[in-house]
Amino acid sequence: MAKKLTEDERAAAMPALNAASWAHEPERDVLKKTFRFKSFVRAWGWMSAVALEAEKLNHHPEWSNVYGTVEVTLTTHDASGLTELDLKLARKMDALARG
Amino acid sequence: MAKKLTEDERAAAMPALNAASWAHEPERDVLKKTFRFKSFVRAWGWMSAVALEAEKLNHHPEWSNVYGTVEVTLTTHDASGLTELDLKLARKMDALARG
Repeated sequence: MAKKLTEDERAAAMPALNAASWAHEPERDVLKKTFRFKSFVRAWGWMSAVALEAEKLNHHPEWSNVYGTVEVTLTTHDASGLTELDLKLARKMDALARG
Repeated sequence: MAKKLTEDERAAAMPALNAASWAHEPERDVLKKTFRFKSFVRAWGWMSAVALEAEKLNHHPEWSNVYGTVEVTLTTHDASGLTELDLKLARKMDALARG
């Protein structure tokens, strides 16, 4: 099972994630980001690619979609906080949004 | 442009929608329902089918997904409330969930 990130691991990961507009919410220990696309089709295309990666990782986002906007929350429920899986999924989401 | 439903149209539509577990929230004039599936793959399969229908209708849901659960909110932003498009999409979602 994935282990909650240590302070050192967070310190190493967060600058790049913050630079990519991921915000950390300490209350729930989650990462949040809003992705914006030109249309529903574009948003859906990205979500579909992410869905396949999430299923491969066996790690799934909390996410909501309204037309071209997708709000994402990442956390690992089993660990009650952030794990390496969340970092992997966050980076994958960013890579897929770059196309 | 779709017109907001009249009182008569609502009275005709709501019993069947309520029976199918759609709830009306009068503050925002929206329909809400939570769909539950056995897995992310099942939830995603249903969402993908709905996405194609939504795009065909050019009418899109507000929805959020966590693993096998999908919370749906339907309303027509242009009309500031429910229209025939919301009824169509609600019925289509139910039909697709039945398989």
